[in-house]
Order: sequence, then structure tokens, then C-alpha cells
Amino acid sequence: MCIRMAQTLMISLLTDLELLDLDLQNFFFKHLVQTSSCFRGGNGPGSNRVKEEAGASYRFFICTFPALIMAQTSVPNGSVCSRSETNNIVSFRSRAEMLKEDFGSQLVHQADCFLVQSATAIGTKSSKDMHLNGKTSSVPSRDLSEVKAPHEKGKNFQERESLLDQLLEVNHIQTIQHMFVALLILFVISTLIVDYIDEGRLVLDFELLSFAFGKLQWVLTTWLAMFVGTLFVPYYLLSHWTRNYQTARHHQPNNTRPKPLLPAPLGITVLYAVSYLAFQLLGLGMFPLYYVVKFDLPPASRFIVIIEQVRFMMKTHSFVRENIPKCMYIKDSQVVFPSLSQYLYFLFCPTLIYRDAYPRTPKIRWAYVGIKFAQVLGCLFYTYYIFTRLCIPMYKNIHNEPFTIKVLVLNIFHSILPGILIFFLAFFSFLHCWLNMFAEMLRFADRMFYEDWWNCTSFSQYFRKWNVVVHDWLFHYVYRDFLRVFPRRFRVAATLSVFLLSAVIHEYILTVCFGFFYPVLFFLFICFGMVLKFLLDGENKGPVYNIMLWAKLFLGQGVLLSLYSQEWYARIHCPPAQGVLWDTVVPRSWSCYQWG
Amino acid sequence: MCIRMAQTLMISLLTDLELLDLDLQNFFFKHLVQTSSCFRGGNGPGSNRVKEEAGASYRFFICTFPALIMAQTSVPNGSVCSRSETNNIVSFRSRAEMLKEDFGSQLVHQADCFLVQSATAIGTKSSKDMHLNGKTSSVPSRDLSEVKAPHEKGKNFQERESLLDQLLEVNHIQTIQHMFVALLILFVISTLIVDYIDEGRLVLDFELLSFAFGKLQWVLTTWLAMFVGTLFVPYYLLSHWTRNYQTARHHQPNNTRPKPLLPAPLGITVLYAVSYLAFQLLGLGMFPLYYVVKFDLPPASRFIVIIEQVRFMMKTHSFVRENIPKCMYIKDSQVVFPSLSQYLYFLFCPTLIYRDAYPRTPKIRWAYVGIKFAQVLGCLFYTYYIFTRLCIPMYKNIHNEPFTIKVLVLNIFHSILPGILIFFLAFFSFLHCWLNMFAEMLRFADRMFYEDWWNCTSFSQYFRKWNVVVHDWLFHYVYRDFLRVFPRRFRVAATLSVFLLSAVIHEYILTVCFGFFYPVLFFLFICFGMVLKFLLDGENKGPVYNIMLWAKLFLGQGVLLSLYSQEWYARIHCPPAQGVLWDTVVPRSWSCYQWG
Repeated sequence: MCIRMAQTLMISLLTDLELLDLDLQNFFFKHLVQTSSCFRGGNGPGSNRVKEEAGASYRFFICTFPALIMAQTSVPNGSVCSRSETNNIVSFRSRAEMLKEDFGSQLVHQADCFLVQSATAIGTKSSKDMHLNGKTSSVPSRDLSEVKAPHEKGKNFQERESLLDQLLEVNHIQTIQHMFVALLILFVISTLIVDYIDEGRLVLDFELLSFAFGKLQWVLTTWLAMFVGTLFVPYYLLSHWTRNYQTARHHQPNNTRPKPLLPAPLGITVLYAVSYLAFQLLGLGMFPLYYVVKFDLPPASRFIVIIEQVRFMMKTHSFVRENIPKCMYIKDSQVVFPSLSQYLYFLFCPTLIYRDAYPRTPKIRWAYVGIKFAQVLGCLFYTYYIFTRLCIPMYKNIHNEPFTIKVLVLNIFHSILPGILIFFLAFFSFLHCWLNMFAEMLRFADRMFYEDWWNCTSFSQYFRKWNVVVHDWLFHYVYRDFLRVFPRRFRVAATLSVFLLSAVIHEYILTVCFGFFYPVLFFLFICFGMVLKFLLDGENKGPVYNIMLWAKLFLGQGVLLSLYSQEWYARIHCPPAQGVLWDTVVPRSWSCYQWG
Repeated sequence: MCIRMAQTLMISLLTDLELLDLDLQNFFFKHLVQTSSCFRGGNGPGSNRVKEEAGASYRFFICTFPALIMAQTSVPNGSVCSRSETNNIVSFRSRAEMLKEDFGSQLVHQADCFLVQSATAIGTKSSKDMHLNGKTSSVPSRDLSEVKAPHEKGKNFQERESLLDQLLEVNHIQTIQHMFVALLILFVISTLIVDYIDEGRLVLDFELLSFAFGKLQWVLTTWLAMFVGTLFVPYYLLSHWTRNYQTARHHQPNNTRPKPLLPAPLGITVLYAVSYLAFQLLGLGMFPLYYVVKFDLPPASRFIVIIEQVRFMMKTHSFVRENIPKCMYIKDSQVVFPSLSQYLYFLFCPTLIYRDAYPRTPKIRWAYVGIKFAQVLGCLFYTYYIFTRLCIPMYKNIHNEPFTIKVLVLNIFHSILPGILIFFLAFFSFLHCWLNMFAEMLRFADRMFYEDWWNCTSFSQYFRKWNVVVHDWLFHYVYRDFLRVFPRRFRVAATLSVFLLSAVIHEYILTVCFGFFYPVLFFLFICFGMVLKFLLDGENKGPVYNIMLWAKLFLGQGVLLSLYSQEWYARIHCPPAQGVLWDTVVPRSWSCYQWG
């Protein structure tokens, strides 16, 4: 289909402009019909292969194009051609005029070879050298060096739109969004009617939301404290260390003399490292946790604090980790220590990898910001309606009925719909809308916060594509730094450590939010993620693997929502077990329900 | 995005083949970056407009391209270039070689104008002359004459793929299909587990299916009788009438003499018309109905008989209606009376508009047929699981509980999910898979059984696009024939008659299938369809209208499924009212439930 569109693009331009005489038009039409028929499958012995390759080419185009374009747009040092320049149609026209002579004369030489050999290429090109996820392709190696770059020399920030923003320009995809909005409208209407019947008036107090986001003043205070700490402590620790380290290094005795046991720079470094770790563990680690428990914040408020805590810890680590190598040689190479405003920008911009500068967009589209904010709000209310209409009625009275395996199975199955809806909403509201909103306000141009995880055929792909922001951090600071310390044959251990860290942090967030320990997500992480990754991972490219991934995602969401909800209500309705620690660790839903 | 892909297509071909020298490659890359940036939005005052127009162009390409290609592929008399020819890469290469000289020399003349003016066109082209649904566009008028043709000179059959077959080549759309399959798998697994717990063994007897499709032998007998009748009666009536009419006409006195009151051809015509109507009303109309009631067929079996009855009646009408004008002048113009095999082909091919010949595909792709058949079966089992797992548990015991408005509202709301799933499955299994399967087996090339109804912004669009097969019949034989008889100012009446006929037939099918009369669908047809069509119809193009359409579709499916299910169970559990007719006409669910 895409190949047709490509042809349509050319032909419509040609015909619209009525530039060509009839013969050339006819030639073009014939050529198009032939090529498009090639891709539509048919009766030749190679027709299926041609069709497959057309599909592969299509996927290949989809995947490689942004990378290709970006490799060209971004100059090596990370800055990018300003949009104002490239966007200007007048400048495009004048450039075209300047170049057309050159183009015209060269094209004559190339056109004949191109036409014939393109047909040959379509017929003979093996789909094997087109990688599905588009990281590599048969483009000239000079472009590949930049496309491939991230894994070799750190994340390469490039100006690029989010995939959903691109996809939502296609009306078929837009319609899917409209269907979700329509469903929200029906949720609202039916809730209003039911509430009106129940209460005799319109109920618009959103009890659940005001409960979940309660005690917001403590959230703000904690956040402000975390923010101020994160802004000043690591920055001044690093800058003082740099100064002291450099001074000590340059006052060191000559290399000819034997070194002391603890050289001056190392002594200073240890001192600062201890202070830094104390800040990370106590200041950022313990303080918000203590605050959250002390003021007994409700779940959503806890979630905000804990997610911000994790974010600040990761940002701090990245800032320190990226700057230490630079700072060690700051006087040698005239590298400037990052300014506080650069660090402040990093604290807000939607990435966890520190750079002194990022590709920027020329201006803020405030309408875009407004739409994204409205969408975040919409998702919040959507989640509210899903909880009040689909989840709470299902779990509220589950402890009163005899509990059997059948009830559990049905419960998990009926949790799939609300579970997957919440999953979609979380993805869309946070990874798409929220991050894009901040990126737009900060003119942050690299919007690849996620890739097309929905097309994945394996969990390892899915983990890479679902949350690129966090994955980049884990990849660069856990996986690669692990392999810097240990030999490269410990790659499996490195992968395992990434998985484990990710699972532990996810479980930590949930445990604090809900106020109980029930490692369902951890179990699923280990089960689906790690075990399946090592057992079943390989070149699983077929649609069957995508179907299986979705079945597992559906089931996973159902299990998560069902088990955590059961435990939540068990903690409300059932008496605690003896011993505080025992009660926190052993799921109360196991002992509480009357097994029938 | 699509424009990028278009560019990628070219550039990847060029770079892959490594045909171009570095300067030209650079020129191409720069050109691409510029153009793609134009479309990515930016800071110029016209950037939003440019973006809008890029979107419009994209939609325009999507919509017009198949039509354009087809207008070129199909020769006016309806036959089509064979796929085998166009599909052959070798022939493409040799043609390219023949044409490359011509192409090369002409391209030099055009390339300069093209490059510069394409930029101008992108900047200045108003999106107003691009119609969203692609019926018309600014392509040269010589193509338009054929694209526009259907409404002017009867349906124009063209070789074209179904839209879903095209869309499902895009991996993002494919993933949606995979999600549905994943859900089906979970349905199956959870049902197996629950059945195993309940019964202690795997239950695979599909009781509901064997009930609904019971007494299949009577279905087959009735269908065979209908088929034989439809095949021979109208054909021989028409051929005899033609012979008699022609004979009578050529033995008529000269035009100079005064005409008799009932001229011989008219007398013959009336005789044959009465026989034809008797066949339509009694043979096709009453006989299957009598059979269905006499043998008390279960719902799905009834549905097959009744849907086939309606189909045969429509086919017969089309065959007679299309052939009468031709047959009246058969001796004058040497038009050949259609052969029985042409008529037989028409009875099976997926269209309701008779033609002596249709565009045909060169061969049958049996793998495609197999996949479509498997998908039909899959949809059948999907529907089974939706009924047994989501619908029956919800409605089975509804008569035991006090019935309130709240129960009704919640019931309708909870019916939305199964309702819309069944709606999707019905569309996909029948309008896409079933019709494509028959089309493929009969090498019927025009696969436009539906258009992109999901993108519609009004119900009148939706009615046109949802079922193109039936819509074409209604448009040509009800709407246009109505306007042939009555003056053109009765257009509203013509539209009304189409709606009414459609609503009545839909309600007739449901009434016979369920065995009771409860005109919910009729009411919705009138309500949503007709009233909204006349009150709200206009140039509603915004996304809000698409959202509203979906909200209405969701709600409509919920209402349909909920009310028909309630009535179904009320007829099982509650005693009939006095009087057979009264009981058939008044919904028993109204009187049966205990209103609380």
C-alpha cells in the first residue's frame, strides 16, 4: 500500500501541476500500474516472495526513514539544523532552483540504470538484509555509522516526533482514538444516569479521585524538598570535587617518584563519593519514603512522590556519571563545567541521559501543549470511570462470597478489559502526552519516548521499545557499565541485573503505593520477562509471536489488576495477621477469603 | 508520514542500488530533509496550513489512488489487463528498457519545472480541492470521468482489493487483528479451565452452536429449492418473454395505424409480469417463510434461510431489471440474451448488480480462500464465546431480580462490549471474509464490498460505506428507479423509501430469526438513521462527528443486544399473553419482569 502511496505522491504532483505532456503522463501511469500490480500479488511463481518483500520493504521504510533523515539533519556534535530554515518553503524553492541544473544533467545519466535495475532489485533483493526493527539496513555505511551510533558511543539525541503523533495523522488510526473517546462519553453518560437514579441528583464530586490524590500539600512539600536537594547537592558536590580533584592532581609529585598509598585525588574522590551516596540513599532514598509513611499519603499521592523520587535518583546518577569523565580532564581539554541552568534544564526535560545540550525545536506550540494536557486530564478521568464502573463493583464484595479457583479464574478474566484499558491509558497519558507536553514546553526535540512496542514479537523487544526513556538509562548505566567493570562474557549477568533492578524498582513503587507487599508484578517480570526471554528468545518474527505477546499482556494485566485489587480489599475487610512484619509480607487475601 | 515514506521509497532504491554518485546522493538527502521538515510543522506562519495540507494530501492519496489505478487498469468495456502480464517483473524490465530513452529525454525538460513548482504547489495548494472521501480530486478530468461514473451510468465494476486487505499489510493495523486473536485465545483458555472445574473434564461440545445451527438438513433442502427456483424460473420467464415480445413486436401493424388499447407486447408483458411477481412473492417470499415456521428452525438456521431468501429476491430483481431494457431491443442491436451460465455466475458472485461480464482475476489463490474460510470459522467461534461467556450469564437470570431503570441502564451499558464485538465480527466475517472468499473462488475482481465506514462523520455516509453491495442495489433499483418514475423533486421521498425498505427488511429478518416482533432495530434505524440524517446532516467533517457516530454505534449495539436478549429470555421464562397475535406483537419483557 505504501509503495502505491509513494507512486501516488509522484503522480499526483505531476498531474496536479499539469506540467507533463500526455505521452509522459501515459508512461507514468503505465509504469505505476505495473509496479503496483507487482506488489498486489498474482500468479507468477515469485509473486508471493515479491509480496513478502514488498511488505518487508514497507516495514523497512517505516523503520529506517526517521533514522536516515535524522542522521542527515543532525550535525555530529548533536546540534540540529534549525526548523525555521528547513521549514521555509521559499528557501526550499530557491535551493531547488539552484540545484535543478545539476540535478537535471545528472539524472539523465542515472535514470536509465535506475529504472531497469530498480525492477531487478525488487525481484531479487533478499528480505534478509532488511532488519525488521530498522536499526540496520542496506543504506550506505556513512549513514549507518550515525544510525548505529547509540549503542557504540552513548545515546544519540535526534530531532524526531513521537510515533503516535505520526500515526495519528492517518485517519484510520485517528478513528481508533475516536472510539476510545466515544467510550469515555458513554461511561460519563451512564454514570450520570445511574447516579441520578441512585441519588436523585447529578453526582460530580469524584470521591475516588479526591481520596487517591488527597493530602496534596504534603506531596508538594516533599517534592519541593526533593527538587531543591537534587538541584543543589549533586551539582555543588560535583563542582567542588572537580575543583579539588584538579588542584590535587596538578600538585601531585612527578611520576618518577613512588605513588602514596591513597593518592590525593582518590582521597578527595572517596570523600565526595561518600557524601554523594549519603545524599542518594538518605536524602533522596529515605526522606521521601519516611514522609510518605509518616503522613499516610493516599495511593496516587504516594505514587507521585515515589515516581519523582526514582526519577530524581536516576537523573542525579546520570548527571554525575556523565560529568565525572569530563571533569577529570577539565583543565587539559578546556571542557567547561556544566552550568546550573543546564542541569536545571536536564532535571525537567523528558530524558534520563544527561547532555550539556540537546536538539531543540525553534518554538513552543502552545496549542499542542494544551491538547496534550487536556488528554492527560481526559485519561485521568477515564481511569476514574474504569475504576468506579468496572473495578470497584467487581471487587468490593468478593470477600463475602465463597472463594474458589473458578471465582479466581473468572475474576482474572473479567479484569482483562479494565486492566488493559488502564494499561493503554497509562501508556498514552504518561509516555505520550505527559512527556510530549514537557518536551514541547522545553523545546526538547527528541520525542522518541517509545517505539512501536505493539508490533513486538518478543518480550525483550517489548522491554526495549515500551519505555525508551527508562530503557536508555538502564542500558547505558546498568548494562554497559556492568560490562565495563566485568568482562564481556558476563553479558547474561548484565542482562539479568538490568531485569532484576527494573523488577525490584517496579515492585518497590507498587509496594509503597499500596502499602503492602505482594510481589505479583515481580513474579510476572521474572516469569514472563526473564524466563521467557532466555528460553524462547530468538528470531521470532512471525505474527504468531505477536499474538502470543498480546495474550500474555492481556493475561498479565488481568492477573495484576485482579490480585492487587483482592489484596487491597482484603486489607480493608479482614483482620491483620499476628506480627506487623508477617502481616506486611504475607498477602492477607490468601488467608482472608472463605475458600469454598 | 506517508510523504516521508514516498521519499524513502525513492531514496532507498537509489541508495540501495548505489547507482548515484555522492553529489547526487547528497542533493537527494538534502531535498528530502527539507521536504520532510516542511511537513513536520514548525514556526513559519504557514506551517500549520502546510501540515494540514500534508494531512489532506495524505488522505487524498489514500482515497484516490486505488480509483486512479483502476481507472487506468480497466478498459472501458469492463475487461481488465491480466494480472499475469502486469505482475511479471521480467516484462516490466523489458518495458522499462524500451521506455527509458523516451523517459530520459522528456524528464530533462520536465524535471526543473517539476522540482520548483512542486514546492510552490505544496505551499499554495488549497486543500479545498481535495475531497476527503476521494470521490473527486484534481486529477485530470479524463480519469475522473471513469471514477465518477457509477452514479451517472450505473455501477462501474473495477478490479480492486478490499480496503482491509490493503490496511492489514500495515503492521500497526495487523497488530490490532492480533489483539483480537489474542483475546479469542484467552476466551478459549478461560472457558476450558472453568468447564474443567465445573465438569471435571474438558467440555468441547459447543451446545449453543449445535442448538443455533440445528436442523441443518431442512436448511439445505429449503436453500436448494430456493436456488433451483431462482435459477430457472426468472431466467426462462425472461427468455420466453423476450422471444414472445420480439415476435409480437415484429408482427405489429405499422406505426401509421392507430394502436390497439392493449398492444400485443404489453399483453404478453403483463402475463409474464404476473408470473414473475407470483414467483417472487409466493415462491421466494412465502415458501421459505412457511418452511422456517413449519419446521421450527432454530435462530441461526432461520437466519441462513431468510438471508438467502432476501439475497435471491434481490438478485432476481437485478437480473430481470437489467435485462428487460436490453431484451426489448434484442433483434435491433444484435444484443445476445445472457446465457444460463452467466446468470448462474451472477447468483454466486458477491454482488447484487447483474452484468453479463465482470472484471476477473487471472487465477484463484487457494491459500487466500483457505485463510478467509478459517477466519469465518474463527469469527463463528468468537461469537460463540462472546455469547456463552459475556451475554448468557448477564441475561439468564435477569427475570428473577427486580427490574428497575437502573438495572436497564447498567444492562445496556454492559451490553456495549459484547454488542460491539459481535458487530465487528459480523462485519469482518461476512462483509470481508465471506464475500472475499467467494470472490476469490469465482475470480471476481471487484472487492469493494465496503468502504472506510469507521472514518465516517455522519450516518448517511455510514449507510453508504458500511455495506456497498446492498447499498448499490438500493441506490440503483430503489432510489434511482424511484426518481425515474417520479419527478426529481421527490428526492427526499426517494431517500425515505430507501431507508424504510432497508429498515423493514432488517426488522423482517430479525423477527423471523427470533420468532418475535420487537422493532428495536427499526426504531434505531428511524431514530438514528432517518431523523438524524435529515436534522443533522451536512458537511460534518470534524473529528467530533466521528466520535459522536461511534458513541451512537456503541450505544446502538448495547441497546440492540440488551433489549433483544431480554425479550428472548422473557419468551422462555414468562407465560404468553392472551391471544397469539397480541403475544407476537407486544414485547413480553415489558409485562414479564417484576418492576422494582
